[in-house]
This record gives sequence, structure tokens and C-alpha cells, in this order.
Amino acid sequence: MNSEFTHFDAAGNAIMVDVTDKGITDRTAVAEGEIIVCKEIIEAVKNGTAAKGDVLGVARTAGIMAVKQTSNLIPMCHPLMIGQCGIEFEIHEDAGLIKAVCTVRISGQTGVEMEALTGVSVALLTIYDMCKAIDKHMEMTRIHLIKKTGGKSGDFYA
Amino acid sequence: MNSEFTHFDAAGNAIMVDVTDKGITDRTAVAEGEIIVCKEIIEAVKNGTAAKGDVLGVARTAGIMAVKQTSNLIPMCHPLMIGQCGIEFEIHEDAGLIKAVCTVRISGQTGVEMEALTGVSVALLTIYDMCKAIDKHMEMTRIHLIKKTGGKSGDFYA
Amino acid sequence: MNSEFTHFDAAGNAIMVDVTDKGITDRTAVAEGEIIVCKEIIEAVKNGTAAKGDVLGVARTAGIMAVKQTSNLIPMCHPLMIGQCGIEFEIHEDAGLIKAVCTVRISGQTGVEMEALTGVSVALLTIYDMCKAIDKHMEMTRIHLIKKTGGKSGDFYA
Amino acid sequence: MNSEFTHFDAAGNAIMVDVTDKGITDRTAVAEGEIIVCKEIIEAVKNGTAAKGDVLGVARTAGIMAVKQTSNLIPMCHPLMIGQCGIEFEIHEDAGLIKAVCTVRISGQTGVEMEALTGVSVALLTIYDMCKAIDKHMEMTRIHLIKKTGGKSGDFYA
Amino acid sequence: MNSEFTHFDAAGNAIMVDVTDKGITDRTAVAEGEIIVCKEIIEAVKNGTAAKGDVLGVARTAGIMAVKQTSNLIPMCHPLMIGQCGIEFEIHEDAGLIKAVCTVRISGQTGVEMEALTGVSVALLTIYDMCKAIDKHMEMTRIHLIKKTGGKSGDFYA
Amino acid sequence: MNSEFTHFDAAGNAIMVDVTDKGITDRTAVAEGEIIVCKEIIEAVKNGTAAKGDVLGVARTAGIMAVKQTSNLIPMCHPLMIGQCGIEFEIHEDAGLIKAVCTVRISGQTGVEMEALTGVSVALLTIYDMCKAIDKHMEMTRIHLIKKTGGKSGDFYA
Repeated sequence: MNSEFTHFDAAGNAIMVDVTDKGITDRTAVAEGEIIVCKEIIEAVKNGTAAKGDVLGVARTAGIMAVKQTSNLIPMCHPLMIGQCGIEFEIHEDAGLIKAVCTVRISGQTGVEMEALTGVSVALLTIYDMCKAIDKHMEMTRIHLIKKTGGKSGDFYA
Repeated sequence: MNSEFTHFDAAGNAIMVDVTDKGITDRTAVAEGEIIVCKEIIEAVKNGTAAKGDVLGVARTAGIMAVKQTSNLIPMCHPLMIGQCGIEFEIHEDAGLIKAVCTVRISGQTGVEMEALTGVSVALLTIYDMCKAIDKHMEMTRIHLIKKTGGKSGDFYA
Repeated sequence: MNSEFTHFDAAGNAIMVDVTDKGITDRTAVAEGEIIVCKEIIEAVKNGTAAKGDVLGVARTAGIMAVKQTSNLIPMCHPLMIGQCGIEFEIHEDAGLIKAVCTVRISGQTGVEMEALTGVSVALLTIYDMCKAIDKHMEMTRIHLIKKTGGKSGDFYA
Repeated sequence: MNSEFTHFDAAGNAIMVDVTDKGITDRTAVAEGEIIVCKEIIEAVKNGTAAKGDVLGVARTAGIMAVKQTSNLIPMCHPLMIGQCGIEFEIHEDAGLIKAVCTVRISGQTGVEMEALTGVSVALLTIYDMCKAIDKHMEMTRIHLIKKTGGKSGDFYA
Repeated sequence: MNSEFTHFDAAGNAIMVDVTDKGITDRTAVAEGEIIVCKEIIEAVKNGTAAKGDVLGVARTAGIMAVKQTSNLIPMCHPLMIGQCGIEFEIHEDAGLIKAVCTVRISGQTGVEMEALTGVSVALLTIYDMCKAIDKHMEMTRIHLIKKTGGKSGDFYA
Repeated sequence: MNSEFTHFDAAGNAIMVDVTDKGITDRTAVAEGEIIVCKEIIEAVKNGTAAKGDVLGVARTAGIMAVKQTSNLIPMCHPLMIGQCGIEFEIHEDAGLIKAVCTVRISGQTGVEMEALTGVSVALLTIYDMCKAIDKHMEMTRIHLIKKTGGKSGDFYA
């Protein structure tokens, strides 16, 4: 751990930190998160995946598009040329939740953990939006980074 | 509860639902969520609020700007002319978390719960981004709607 | 027909025309267009709709999101609060083409024909993108307005 | 031809494909398309180019700006740092149409055909918007790729 | 004059102020600004307006499009449905400057002065961009509001 | 000085110039500008920096985010992967103005002067927005480039 902020200069002003001298390396980040839903929604989403309305398909598209918007949403994030992005969902029927896992890869000068976390967040928000007519008590939870490789600060595994 | 999706037509195709016939009423939504952080981050954020780097100030601005991007992020959300928006933070030192509460108000044809949830999500993601050099084990959690008023489906309280 | 441009002032300068005095009325526009594709793509799209990759689902989401970006893409278009939007596809196997039909509805001061045409265009571009690894000879064609109702200039049917 | 989709993984989920291992090469794409218009519009556009309202100038600017929005519009497109972009128009008076040709060049890891096609589409949509007060029967047609060079899949000529 | 900020709540947190209770009235704002340029640029711009490259045409389009982006750029601005927008330029050859004047009109709940000022700023920045290969000593100056009508705070004339 | 436009082709059509053959070098640009304000605003901003509302913090965030939007605002600007960005403010109480200085750094194929100028402009516009309830006679002025290094055209100092 490092108790120093990197997103502020010595005077305490927010800055977008300098990455121009960092080497271009292959970097990957994987983040995940869950949305807790009622039984009716689990059923509707499962059936929907087949033919009556593809909630997860729309959420996946939204999440991938959001990954590309990360630097427009998070003020101090660098614009990045994402090299690969995918989002997978797991329906945990017994636990009453849907899990989203977002993987982002880049050959670049800085990491993509914010992109992966943003992809998960917007995918879950989209599930919420498309199911909120059924029940508004959903909760998005446990959104965190599970893996990060590449870059000089070393690999990270949750 | 209502087990019917409103974001799909009879053939199962995703649609942006029709709100053109709905009345213009005063609507409010309040959402909240938390980010679990380590002691060092709590300290850094608390001190930062004073003069050495205002994490919560940047996160608040990011969250308010994200509220206005909701319909560009969530595919089936309607574009809305947000009438008011604010985000408040609470630092819960003992619990080791920072809570974000986003309030959105509109005089319009459809509700603003997705806007409030998006504001909370992006505010928390921004805190993550600005503190991730200290520790990457943060977790964004318990993001949910706590109140919604106005509109014909009646008021909602979590 | 009217041989006068409305998007230029008397000096020939492009302007966004004044709609502030126009009444708020219910307006609808429907546009359609086609993409000519080879047999392999027809097959891949048809099978994809089931379980192996939903080209049309992604294209529909992209088209609906593009409808909301119309005023950011077309310089003299007014920002509008779209009230409803849907996109339908028809696979014409014998003719070797996929047709996209976009319907947009609004209760507002100006028409939504540009929104419907933009939705069709981006839906077709997305089909192109997702199928271009199979064959790049696709052609997007016959994109036009088929219906427009509401507003003082009267209804239009192609 | 290749009958395999590259924008879906083995499970049929849409993905943004991995380009991180691809070499950086000089790539060019040229796309074209037409808008069929009535005599009055041909006249108005031709005269407009002089001093009374420059339809094609506005359409060119809109098309170039849209090229830069491609990855925000087409869900599985990679963000790219466009190196060059131009749009030319030809007025075919006898045929009653205006042709748009968009050239995009990049030194990058993936091709720019979607950028060129998007530039053509938005340029034509802008012509439609600026002329629709004269006649709404315009049709955008024959939008296709005419050339693509660079990249390991080889050059393409329509 | 009013010495109280309206963009902060009682605790000093930035907020987007509440306009939901304000009446919908017809509102206009006019802003202007100048860019000081060298003789070569004055000449190039003047000639360019004719046939060799229309700097002011591109700048006008950019300014009008920026007006529509105001609430995405200025954190506490409300999204607004702009009803009309135009930008005019005056070439002051003796003074060695080009003046931009932006007029915005809306029927809405809050004023459009930020929109007019943003339109002027981006129009001037575009002139800078298109002329900077000739000389980089240009200066954008005297950007201010000259008129504002409508709304309960009364009319304003500079 | 160079009396030739680079943003137009031989026929006078606006183009985004070709940078694909330019080398990747380390480039920096610094721009500054001022906003002339009344005494009440100077006081409010100074006190606000402490605890009652951080005008300059919001303006800094807005300016940094705008730097990343430059190529979406200025039609012929290339999209760039900004490597570093910071904005500093100086309150000149006697002169009755607030100065903004924006520094942008990149390792890329083209310069970042438009990014630095855009950052200054939007930071000043945000100050205007947050103080306009106190007084609308503010003026944004003397926005210019003060330094540019890197690139084959040589360094520039105002």
C-alpha cells in the first residue's frame, strides 16, 4: 500500500497524472459485480435470453459501449484505445443474483481497471433498468477488481 | 410486483417504451451506495477534503455530470431534462466506508431512478479511481434506490 | 414542394431554425432502409438470432442509442426528448437483404424524421460491422422516410 | 469469404475482438454513397455552394466529426486515433443525385472501413436534413466500401 | 448584484440548482467574443469564405454543435432543448480581429447564457485551429454576454 | 509564418490533415486565459475555496474533462490519447481577475495546443456559470497559447 494520492499535485489540485514516459505493455483487467434480484426477475431474465426479450444481450452491449466512455465519465482517467473487451453473465438462481464479469485488454501506457469496473457497473445498471417494472428492490453489490496484469506496479489478484 | 417486461415488445425486441401520453408531473428519486475502503483511504479522503486534494469534490462533479449522461449509457432510457441534482457523501469511519446519496428531481413524463443510480455509481467509481494508487481492494456495494415519488405507478420507499 | 432552404438565414449562414413558437404536438416518423448481403451472411444472421450471436439484437440496441444522438451528429438538428423508439428487422432471404424499420414518437415542437433515419443508418452500419469478417461487399441502400405525422406541415407518406 | 463471425465468442456473446497483438500498420479505407434528390434540391445545393448557404460544407464537417464518433455509435468498434479524414462530394445533375466519398487513414492496429462508412452515412443524413424542407422523398443509397488497404487480411477493392 | 452562490448548497457542496418549479417562458441570450489575428490570417479567412476554404463556415457549424453540448461541458448546467441557434461573424480588418456573435433562443425553465457563451468560445477556438499553421499568436478575447431576456431575474443588457 | 492553410485541400474543402507519417514525439502545450470579475466574486471564490463551495475545484475538473473532448468539439482536430493534464488558477485580487493556466502533455503524432486552449476556455466558462448569479458582467479574455514544445515545426513561446 501507498498512502500518497497520485491524482493530486503537491498543492492538492486534481490532475490527470503523467503517463507519457511509461512503456507500452500488454495490460489486462477483470472486474466483477452482482445484482440481487427477486425470483420473478431471475425467471424473466432466463426466459428472456431465449426469445422473449434479451435483457443480458442489451446489458452486454451497454457495458461494452460504456467501457469506451470511461475517460469521459471518470474525470482523471486517460483516454485509451481499448484493444479487447467482453462481458459475461452468470445467473445464480439459488443465491438470487446475476453476476457480471468484464474483461478488458490493452496494449498501452496505463492500466484498464477503471474500464473493467465501469463496464460492470453499466451492465448492472442496464439490467436494473430493464427489470425495474417488475420490482425496484434490486441492489447492485460487490463490484470490485478481481485481476490486473501488466504495468510496472505488478500484478494484482483480489 | 408486475411480472411483465416493459422494455420489450410482444415479439421480444428491446424498445424504448412510449411515454408521450404520460402527464408531466414533478418526480424525485433518491439512490445510495457505498464504497468499502481501508483506513489509509478514509484518512486520505478526510484530510483531502480540507486542502490536500478534494476526492469527494471531484467525485461529486463526476456524479452530477454522469446523471446527465444516463440516457447515453443505458440503452432504453429516455433523454430527460433534469431539473435538479445533488450528491452528498458520508464518511463512516468505523464501518470503513464512504456512502454516496444522489437526489434527482424533474418535472417530466418519466421517472429519474436510473439517473440517481447512475450518479451514485459514477461518484463511487471516481472515488475508486482517485484512491486506487493507495489500495485496489475497494468494493462498491449496496447501490440501490431508496425513494421515488411522482408518476402514476405510485411512490416507492426501500 | 418549397424551394427555400430553412437551415440558412438570409445571408446564407447555416442556422438551427427557430421552433420556440411551435406548438407541442404528438409526432411520429417511420424510416426504413436495407442492407444487401450474401447468402452466408443471411444464414449466419438467421442462426445467430437464436443462440450463436445475436447480430440483430446488437444492431437494434445500437440504432436506438443512435436515435438519441441525432442532434449531436446532424449539425442543425434540435435536441429532442424522444418519447418512444423501436427498430424492427425483416430478413428477406430470396432478395438477399435485411431491412430495418425505425419508428420514433415524440410529444414536441419539431418532427423526428432525422431521428428515424439516423436509427436506420446506424442499425445497418452495425450489421455491416458485425458481418464484415464474412464479406465486405455489403451495400446499405434505399434508406428513406416512409411516414411522418403531426406538425403543421401536414402528414407525409412515401 | 469466411463464414465465421469474429464479433461473438464461442458461446455466442458479442465481444469487442482482441487487436492488442496486431501490428501497427498504415491503413486506408474509402467508402462512398449517394443521395437521390429532386431537381429543386440539385439547384439549391449548387447555388448554395456559392454564397446562399453551403449545404455540402456543413455536410462535410458533420461527416468528418462523425468519423471520430464511430466507436461511440457502433458497439463493437474499437476506439481509434484517426490520422487523416476527408470527404468529397460530386453533384450528378443528370442522374439526380449527390455522391459522397469519404477517405480515412490511420497508422494503427485495426482497419477504418467502419469510420469511412459512418462518415458517408452522416454526410448524407446532413444533406437530407438541410434539404428536407424542399422535399422529403430523398433516398440514401448504395453506401458501400470501395477500397481498403493495409492489415493482414489483404487489400480490398469493390 | 447578489452575493450568494446558487450553485452550492448550505454545506458548500456543488449542486445543479432546482428549476422544476420555474415557469416555461421564452428566453434569449446573445454573447460575443473576438479573436485577434495577423494580417495574413485576415486575408486568408476573407478569401477562404469565397472558394478556397471556408474557415468561418466550419467555425459556425462547430459553434452551433457546441451550443448543444453545453450541459455536457459545464458541470452544473441543465440539459436544455435549444429552440434556435445562430452564429454570425464580423471581420474587422483595421482592428485585426474577427468577432463572433452567438444568439440562442429557448422556450424553457432556465436561461441560455452559458449556451451562447459556449457557442462563441468554440467558434473562436475553431478559427484558431484552422489558422494556427499560419500564426500561433492569436488571442481570444472579450468573450461576454451582451443581452439576456426572459426569466424572472429580469432582462440583462451589457 | 506560413500563409498556407493546412486544414483545406487544394479544392478548398476542409480536411483533417494527415498525421500518419509523423513521428511519435513528446509534446507539451501550455495555454492561459483570464476572467475579469467584480470584487464580490473574487471574495466569494476565495472563501469558497475553503469550505463554502469550491468554484475553482469544479472549474478545474470541468477543464480537464473538456481537454479530453477537444476532438469532439473542434471539427478538424485529431483524437489524441492525452498523457497528462493539469489546470492551475491564480486569483489576482487587485487586477480583479482569475487566471487559468492549462498544461497538456502527450507522446504522440501531433501537438496539443488546441487541447490546452480548450481546457482554459471551459474552465473559465465554468467559473462564469458558477458566479453568474452574483454578476453577469464577467468577461473571458486574453486566452492564448504561451508555450508549445515537441514536433517538427519547432518550439513556440509567446
